[in-house]
Amino acid sequence: MSTCERDALSEASLPIRPPSHLRKYVRALATAADSSVPSYRVNEKRLWESVHDTAKWGATPDGGIRRLALTDLDKAIREWFVSTVKFLGCNTKVDEMGNIFATRPGKSSSLPPIGIGSHLDTQPAGGRYDGILGVLAGVEILRVLEENGHQTLAPLAIIDWTNEEGARFNTGMVSSGVWSGRYALDFAHALPAAEDKSKATTLKSELERIGFLGAMPASYKANPLSSHFELHIEQGPILEDEGKKVGIVTGVQSMGWLIVTVHGENQHSGTCPMARRACALTSAARMISRVEEIALAADGLSTVGVINSWPQSPATVPHKVVFSVDLSHHSSEVRERMIAETSEEFARIAQANKCTVEIEDIWNSPAVQFHPDCIGCVRDAAKSVAGENGVKEMVAGAGHDSVHTSDRVPTSMIFVPSKGGISHHPDEYTSSEQW
Amino acid sequence: MSTCERDALSEASLPIRPPSHLRKYVRALATAADSSVPSYRVNEKRLWESVHDTAKWGATPDGGIRRLALTDLDKAIREWFVSTVKFLGCNTKVDEMGNIFATRPGKSSSLPPIGIGSHLDTQPAGGRYDGILGVLAGVEILRVLEENGHQTLAPLAIIDWTNEEGARFNTGMVSSGVWSGRYALDFAHALPAAEDKSKATTLKSELERIGFLGAMPASYKANPLSSHFELHIEQGPILEDEGKKVGIVTGVQSMGWLIVTVHGENQHSGTCPMARRACALTSAARMISRVEEIALAADGLSTVGVINSWPQSPATVPHKVVFSVDLSHHSSEVRERMIAETSEEFARIAQANKCTVEIEDIWNSPAVQFHPDCIGCVRDAAKSVAGENGVKEMVAGAGHDSVHTSDRVPTSMIFVPSKGGISHHPDEYTSSEQW
Repeated sequence: MSTCERDALSEASLPIRPPSHLRKYVRALATAADSSVPSYRVNEKRLWESVHDTAKWGATPDGGIRRLALTDLDKAIREWFVSTVKFLGCNTKVDEMGNIFATRPGKSSSLPPIGIGSHLDTQPAGGRYDGILGVLAGVEILRVLEENGHQTLAPLAIIDWTNEEGARFNTGMVSSGVWSGRYALDFAHALPAAEDKSKATTLKSELERIGFLGAMPASYKANPLSSHFELHIEQGPILEDEGKKVGIVTGVQSMGWLIVTVHGENQHSGTCPMARRACALTSAARMISRVEEIALAADGLSTVGVINSWPQSPATVPHKVVFSVDLSHHSSEVRERMIAETSEEFARIAQANKCTVEIEDIWNSPAVQFHPDCIGCVRDAAKSVAGENGVKEMVAGAGHDSVHTSDRVPTSMIFVPSKGGISHHPDEYTSSEQW
Repeated sequence: MSTCERDALSEASLPIRPPSHLRKYVRALATAADSSVPSYRVNEKRLWESVHDTAKWGATPDGGIRRLALTDLDKAIREWFVSTVKFLGCNTKVDEMGNIFATRPGKSSSLPPIGIGSHLDTQPAGGRYDGILGVLAGVEILRVLEENGHQTLAPLAIIDWTNEEGARFNTGMVSSGVWSGRYALDFAHALPAAEDKSKATTLKSELERIGFLGAMPASYKANPLSSHFELHIEQGPILEDEGKKVGIVTGVQSMGWLIVTVHGENQHSGTCPMARRACALTSAARMISRVEEIALAADGLSTVGVINSWPQSPATVPHKVVFSVDLSHHSSEVRERMIAETSEEFARIAQANKCTVEIEDIWNSPAVQFHPDCIGCVRDAAKSVAGENGVKEMVAGAGHDSVHTSDRVPTSMIFVPSKGGISHHPDEYTSSEQW
């Protein structure tokens, strides 16, 4: 997360609870589902083909996809998406962030649509399922409803959120974030494309170039939903390890990043006695071991993913080490305590090793609790398909567009197993039966 | 140290003891010194000016010097050196490695000269004293002898060894190494200049370009010395910390580098449970702490100077970490035991963390014991200047050209304090009084 992204975050207002006036729609829908919706089944083979046919836009030889947001490949699948949903009876709207809403009319035109959304962009070396499954499962739902001639009570909107990965424009989930009011439109429009060192290519200029800069405000007010559901691969190994088929996602954990800089003294490896050293890397190694202990004790997660040392000479005691610490926990409060303990312990370790330490909290996202009515819908549906023992209630470990929709409308997610827990990688896999 | 450098090392023959037939010359000289040499004193101010005047070739705004081997700046100081020593009655010889031998005739023309050598090249951001002091102190000795009209028994050779730092041509002490037979001439000539990615610029082509490719073989046989002395800054803090004025260097410690590669598994920081992780960096952190314990227990030195992780994403458990381990000890045998213990412990730590580890011994240099007669000369002279309590016998922690001369002729070194133990840095400092 960049500095400007952080600034945008701190400026944004973040209401915690979804607006209560919308809850009744969800309950109405749940009731309708129980009483009048027959138990339709998706066509596994058709969904499988849809995922793998559209993979041609960005397919890599290793079986993955490279389809960065707002590139010509993204344009191609967006155009396919628009023409496909039109054929299935939807009208489509594109907002100022290029978010596409494919709306299938419901019996009640006064109800805001029920959203089913995810994203069609990928990581630079991404897999075939992350995000894509969520949008194409929505298309499959349209097909099932269409072939059964079924009209839902509320309209249904299948949504492709723009630049969820944040791989090309360096803020993940930015477009659902503008829709929810978390990010300012100008901030998002000005995000530069990662590949253009001149910063002349922006999210807005690319939206314009590929013809997906809509006129409709990207806003939950101008373009409301009554709720948001997202089917996603777990991106972790828990469902597979526990032999579960479906994850009922009750929320998203609290997460964030620290950047830790340890300052020591540049000394000669062969001539400086051990007792006289101020080795930034020896200190950092102790900190890395310690933060892991802190996370384990709190039943949270800690990851040090990036580390670099200066001056990168084997014969020189490093005078500077910078590393990242990713800390997450189901509870925002516990995560705050983990950070406090980490800061104290790092200062203690630095001092004991004649070093100093600076810790910068560059990004954090509080825990999200999804809406009980939406969770209830997911729970009932999941159990009806996978049975009591085939489901698991769980908290998502990664960020998703649903984090932002949840700020404004009742939201929940459905997880399916990720083989080996692998994601953001060409080896990403979930079988069509698991879908 | 590169692969080819390693190959050259393993091919070289490394006799341990200096040739015995030369010892008598050293003893003769020592006797002559005791009986007939008056107690001349160097002109501190003149030496100080010499060091700082010649710093113009490569002076940097921060007070340091950047004078990489065989650049135009190195050419300039070499030409100054040659003209200065000629004026002081020396004849000069340049060998195939560009080593310059400035020889002042002695009473006995049949004795090989007594060598006083070091180097005039620097690190990219080097100080004003490392190497330079050793050569220019030799020039000052010539001046003192000249102004006193004194002729030594054996001839005296002031030597500038080429590319000691190895900063431009990536093998330190390579030219004294060719002279001693440790490196093949062809290997050394073919070393590419670090700044030329095409590898077309070599040590030989640069010698030719600046006019310092001599015809004389770089060889202790074709161009013998009877002994070698080197005045050098300590590059460590021991003399300063203990309030000593002169270090009597009895040898050079055993040293070398391991490159350690830890392989883990690329996992998602937010979704992979701690217990399921194979984090290459968590393993590496434990290894870094452990090798320090091993070094402390053995009274040796360990340094991890370089570390890098892959894929450098804060939100990804790193699947690969590579780091260097510099291990040194006064005793080659103890250092071997440190390496064995390190290898065992690293394998154990890797396994306990579901990782694997590869350890490559990319360079090592056994301990060097300087010649007792030379050490005796240094001891007597040092005590006469600094008093019994002003001297300290010590083992050098870094490599010097004297390591290579010691393979062939009786050698010793003299250390003067380094302020704050700082070296290879513009802040390097030793007062003229300490010289």
